[in-house]
Amino acid sequence: MNISVPDILISEVGPRDGLQSVKATMRTADKCQWIDSLVAAGLREIEVCSFVPAKTLPQMADAVEVVRHALTHRGVTVMALVPNRRGAESALKAGVHKLTIPVSASTAHSLANVRKTPEEMVEEVRAIVALRDAMAPSVKVEAGISTAFGCTLQGVVAEEDVVWLAKKCIMAGADESGLSDTTGMANPAQVRRLFDKVRAAIGDKTGAAHMHNTRGLGLANCLAAYDVGVRTFDSSLAGLGGCPYAPGASGNVVTEDLVFMFESMGLNTGVNIERLIAAREFLRVGLPGEPLYGMVPEAGLPKGWTAPKRQHSVVGSAA
Amino acid sequence: MNISVPDILISEVGPRDGLQSVKATMRTADKCQWIDSLVAAGLREIEVCSFVPAKTLPQMADAVEVVRHALTHRGVTVMALVPNRRGAESALKAGVHKLTIPVSASTAHSLANVRKTPEEMVEEVRAIVALRDAMAPSVKVEAGISTAFGCTLQGVVAEEDVVWLAKKCIMAGADESGLSDTTGMANPAQVRRLFDKVRAAIGDKTGAAHMHNTRGLGLANCLAAYDVGVRTFDSSLAGLGGCPYAPGASGNVVTEDLVFMFESMGLNTGVNIERLIAAREFLRVGLPGEPLYGMVPEAGLPKGWTAPKRQHSVVGSAA
Repeated sequence: MNISVPDILISEVGPRDGLQSVKATMRTADKCQWIDSLVAAGLREIEVCSFVPAKTLPQMADAVEVVRHALTHRGVTVMALVPNRRGAESALKAGVHKLTIPVSASTAHSLANVRKTPEEMVEEVRAIVALRDAMAPSVKVEAGISTAFGCTLQGVVAEEDVVWLAKKCIMAGADESGLSDTTGMANPAQVRRLFDKVRAAIGDKTGAAHMHNTRGLGLANCLAAYDVGVRTFDSSLAGLGGCPYAPGASGNVVTEDLVFMFESMGLNTGVNIERLIAAREFLRVGLPGEPLYGMVPEAGLPKGWTAPKRQHSVVGSAA
Repeated sequence: MNISVPDILISEVGPRDGLQSVKATMRTADKCQWIDSLVAAGLREIEVCSFVPAKTLPQMADAVEVVRHALTHRGVTVMALVPNRRGAESALKAGVHKLTIPVSASTAHSLANVRKTPEEMVEEVRAIVALRDAMAPSVKVEAGISTAFGCTLQGVVAEEDVVWLAKKCIMAGADESGLSDTTGMANPAQVRRLFDKVRAAIGDKTGAAHMHNTRGLGLANCLAAYDVGVRTFDSSLAGLGGCPYAPGASGNVVTEDLVFMFESMGLNTGVNIERLIAAREFLRVGLPGEPLYGMVPEAGLPKGWTAPKRQHSVVGSAA
């Protein structure tokens, strides 16, 4: 019995996507402790920061230190978001294992977010891949197609635009391309249809599902993505970040609830829910007053509940 | 194009399941206005009350009046919960269209809830069916298998117990038997497996999925049930009722979010979401201070969103 190979990869985005969305700036030491607790819970891929000008995002000014700390954990893929080649260069110098580049399928959103058209972002992907090839060939490059399921600026986003863009990113050298429901507009039928179409275009270079829970469909959309073969899911501890509209309406899918769903279904995520819930404490300390979401942490695990493959190995820690 | 036959039947349980769970007693006139607003939104099946001793549940003391009012709406199936033959007799006298009998698959829960074993409840179903045959043969009888996915008292509930009980209820004369996740312990894999097994045993007498959102999996479980052929779903406006543990953790699946999910998928529920959201106002008035759940009402409909089959006919109202 091989208990160390999970069925599902949960890619925790809290330290980047979460912290980038809150007003407060978490202290570097608190970030590092939080990352340690995520690793201790069994998470094996963590988006720890973004490499952007400190003027734009003071929350990410300590990116190099955070990466350095995260790299002390063996067996964890340390990931950073980079919007352009300058960010990629810094991230590669810092020693990350994986870069993720946000490429928006909505021109309106792309221009508002990075002041580039989708076509120009494809060129940015190509430049980043060249940089990676030159500086650190083993590093993986992911292009995450944002607003893939709809855009608050543009409204409907054509599915052919999403498929075209994912294909272009792969042709530009990205190792994988996933789909992000940036604005919480996806539905399960659309998730199945669009991932099917993307897979038909780029095969096993199809990457993660990054779903939001803005309208309550986060887990249903993850289930739909799982049904059509997606095995990597982005989520955030306590649902931090994303695009919360209102109290109770978290943006990102809550890692605790997502892990609970998959483990309950008999799928091994490699993550220990109790330790995951314990990791919330570092958010409470590091971001006092910030609302923490999650239904499973509130309700507790069901009586008699045991994760089907409980004795998974926990990734080694440097501590 | 037949726009009047929806793909999905949403069975609204708020006036019974919801009101039964809150401490306050809603005034009869407020209940009637709320029911009117639900009908105006296009809901075609409403569980309007339960027939239980007023001493036990003062919230339901006006059951006869509420049924009388609900019956003034044409085209709406007026449903009542009855735990025993005495309740069934009162409900049949009042003129309801459909009876629902809660039959628990967990002996511990059954004894705690109705002081009868599951086997004794099957005999109650048989007696109620006999009463129905004698008094009002056109009335439908549903046996809802509660704690079908787990029990807070007993823990795990064996799937063969659930299938056996559903079969026994149908053999006792019930027209349909659905499955209830009374305690919010279901997961999508279990929902698919168990509904498949029940359908293998009782065929098209398989009834509604009554899911709870206790641990955030409500919509994912409804999607899973839809995938294996379930077309009737219980839910509650604003998630009223069920078994809420904590702020933000609603018990029942929220009708607004459920309708949004299915309509977004291109399925016709016959329900107009804007009117559904407007119906929340009657809850605010009738139950001041009661928390109202729902992600779609908080976040609003997405930009550019249109339900695929928007021009559905709305069920006739007496007003």
